[in-house]
Amino acid sequence: MTSPEAREQAVLEAVGQRRELVNEAIPEALPITKPERLYEASRYLLDAGGKRLRPTVLLTTAEALADVEPLTQSYREFPQVGDAGADTVDVMDAAVSVEVIQSFTLIHDDIMDDDDLRRGVPAVHKEYDLETAILAGDTLYSKAFEIMLETGAPADRTVRALDVLANTCTKICEGQSLDVTFEARADVTPAEYLEMVEQKTAVLYAASACLPGVLLGADDETIDALYGYGLDIGRAFQIQDDVLDLTVPSDKLGKQRGSDLVENKQTLITVHAREQGVDVGDLVDTDDVDAVTEAEIDEAVGALEDSGSIAYANETARDLVEQGKDRLTVLPDNDARDLLFDIADYLIERGY
Amino acid sequence: MTSPEAREQAVLEAVGQRRELVNEAIPEALPITKPERLYEASRYLLDAGGKRLRPTVLLTTAEALADVEPLTQSYREFPQVGDAGADTVDVMDAAVSVEVIQSFTLIHDDIMDDDDLRRGVPAVHKEYDLETAILAGDTLYSKAFEIMLETGAPADRTVRALDVLANTCTKICEGQSLDVTFEARADVTPAEYLEMVEQKTAVLYAASACLPGVLLGADDETIDALYGYGLDIGRAFQIQDDVLDLTVPSDKLGKQRGSDLVENKQTLITVHAREQGVDVGDLVDTDDVDAVTEAEIDEAVGALEDSGSIAYANETARDLVEQGKDRLTVLPDNDARDLLFDIADYLIERGY
Repeated sequence: MTSPEAREQAVLEAVGQRRELVNEAIPEALPITKPERLYEASRYLLDAGGKRLRPTVLLTTAEALADVEPLTQSYREFPQVGDAGADTVDVMDAAVSVEVIQSFTLIHDDIMDDDDLRRGVPAVHKEYDLETAILAGDTLYSKAFEIMLETGAPADRTVRALDVLANTCTKICEGQSLDVTFEARADVTPAEYLEMVEQKTAVLYAASACLPGVLLGADDETIDALYGYGLDIGRAFQIQDDVLDLTVPSDKLGKQRGSDLVENKQTLITVHAREQGVDVGDLVDTDDVDAVTEAEIDEAVGALEDSGSIAYANETARDLVEQGKDRLTVLPDNDARDLLFDIADYLIERGY
Repeated sequence: MTSPEAREQAVLEAVGQRRELVNEAIPEALPITKPERLYEASRYLLDAGGKRLRPTVLLTTAEALADVEPLTQSYREFPQVGDAGADTVDVMDAAVSVEVIQSFTLIHDDIMDDDDLRRGVPAVHKEYDLETAILAGDTLYSKAFEIMLETGAPADRTVRALDVLANTCTKICEGQSLDVTFEARADVTPAEYLEMVEQKTAVLYAASACLPGVLLGADDETIDALYGYGLDIGRAFQIQDDVLDLTVPSDKLGKQRGSDLVENKQTLITVHAREQGVDVGDLVDTDDVDAVTEAEIDEAVGALEDSGSIAYANETARDLVEQGKDRLTVLPDNDARDLLFDIADYLIERGY
C-alpha cells in the first residue's frame, strides 16, 4: 500500500513532468499572430498556469494503452495500440486541444459568473474587456478543433475524436445551463446535482481519458471503459472541490473558505443537507464574501458535519474513484496504469 | 440578358424554395431538449427568420457540382460528383451547419456591440440574459460541428469539411477582432478594410460554396475555385450592405439610414473618402442615431458622392462579383450554375 503522502508526491511529480511538455506545446499550437490582441487574450489564461490535470490524464492513458514506459516515448510520435497500425500519432495535440477547451470554458464562465480573479490573475474580461473575452473564448473553441485535426491519426479515428470533442462541448454547455437553473431551485436532488457535474465538469475528463483510445486504435470496449473512468474521476474531482471549499483555510485555498455557502451555490453537500432537513439558505447570514467571519463558516461547517453531509460527499467521491479504477482493468498492467490509479486517488486526497 | 428585376425575382424564388427546406431541417438538427431554456435560446434567432442565403449558396453549388436539375434531388440523399462514389451525402446537414455557425456569430456579435434588435426581434441577450446568450452561442458552435459530422460523407472528406468549418470560425473571430481594432484607427486603408471583411463575413460564404465540393468528392481545383467564388461574393455582399446603409430610406432599411456614419463605423466608403481628404469624422455632427436628421444624412451622402466613394464601393463590389462568376467555369454548364451567377449579381443589385 502506498501512503496518501507518497502517492500525492508521485502524482505531483508525474503531473509536473507532463505539464512542462504541455506548456511547451501550447505556444506552438497557439502562436501569437495577427490580430495580436486577440491571440494574447486567448493565451492569457493558458499562460497564467494551471495544473494540466486533463492533459496529464490523456498522456498517461496513451502510455498505458500503448504499453510503453512513462516518459520514454515522444508524445509527438506515439505508437498505436497493438497491431492497430504502424504510423505514429501526435497525442500531445490531443492533450493541448483538451486544455484549450478547458481554457475557453473558464473564460466564458468567468464572464457569466462575473468573477474577477482566476489562477491568481484577473479574469480575461477584467484584464481585457467583455468583447475581447467573448472573442478569445470563441477563438480557442475553433482552435481546439483545428489542433485535434492535426494528430495524424487515420481519418475515421479523427472523425470520431472530433465527435467526442464536439459532444463534450455541447454537454459542458448543457451542464453550465443546468447549474444556472439550479441556483433558483431549492429542491435539487443529489442525483440531479451529480448529473449536472457529470455534464459540466466530468465529460472533459472522460474525453481526456478516452481520446487516446480513439486516436491510437483501441477497441470499443476499452474506449468505453476509459470514458467511464474519466466520468467517475471527474465527478469525484468536483465533489472534492466542494469539500475543500469548506475545509481548507482561506489562505491556502486562495479565496474565502466557505464562499460557495455565502454565494448560495449548490454543492453535493448542501443538496444532501437540505434533504436531511438543514435550512441551507440560513447557514450563513450574509451573502457578501468579504463580510463573512471564520466563526460563521465554522458554525456552518459544524452543522453540515452533524447532518452527515460532508461525510456523504467524501464517501460518494471515494466510491466514484473506486468505480473508476475498477474500469481500468481493460488496460495492460503497467506503470502508466498504476499512475492512472494514483491520479484517481489523488483527486480526492489532495489538500487543495 | 436578364434584367436585374427578373433576376431578383428568380433569385428570391430560388432562395425561398430552399429556405423552406432549411427551415424544416433546423428543428430536426436542433430539437428543443433539456435543458429547455438553453435550447430555446439557441433556436430563438434561427426561428426568427433570415434569408438563408448561405445555405442557398451551399445547396445550389451541390446541384451544380452533381449536375442535377435544381430541386429535383433530395438534399438528404445527394449524389456525389462524377465517379467519386456511389453513396449519397446529406448536404442539407452541411447547409444547416453553416447557418448554425452564422447564428452563433450573430448572438455573440450582438452582445459585443450591445445591439438591442436583430431580425426585428430582441437580441438573444436582451430576450434572455447575458449568460444565456453566451451559452446559447457556445452551444450552437459545437452543434454546428456535430451536424457537419452527420453528412455521411467518407471519413477523409468529413475531416476536410470539419477543417474548413474550424478554420472559418477562427477567421470570423479574427475578422471581428480586426473590426473592433479598426474603430480606434483613422488610417485604415481600403485593402485593410477588404481583408477584414474577407475574414469577418466572406469566409462563411466561401465555406458554403466549397463544402459541397469537399463532401461530394470534387477535385481540388474545383474546391479552390468555389472557395474563391464565395470569398468574392461575400465581400461584395458586405460592401453592398455598406452602400445600402446610406442609400435606402430608413423605413425600408428597418433602421436609421446612415447609422454607420453616425456610429463612426468604418466602411469601404468612409475608408475611401478619408483617403480622398474627406473629414469623415465630421460628416455627421451627432453620434446619436435618434438625433440625426434626414437632411444631415443627405448632406453627408452628397459629400461621399462628390469624393467618388460611393461609386468606388459600387465598382469594387461589381468587380468582385464578376471575378467570382468567372471562377465558376470549373462547374458544369447547367441551371444551378446559372443560379449561382444570378445570386452573385443579386447580392449587389438587391435594394435591401
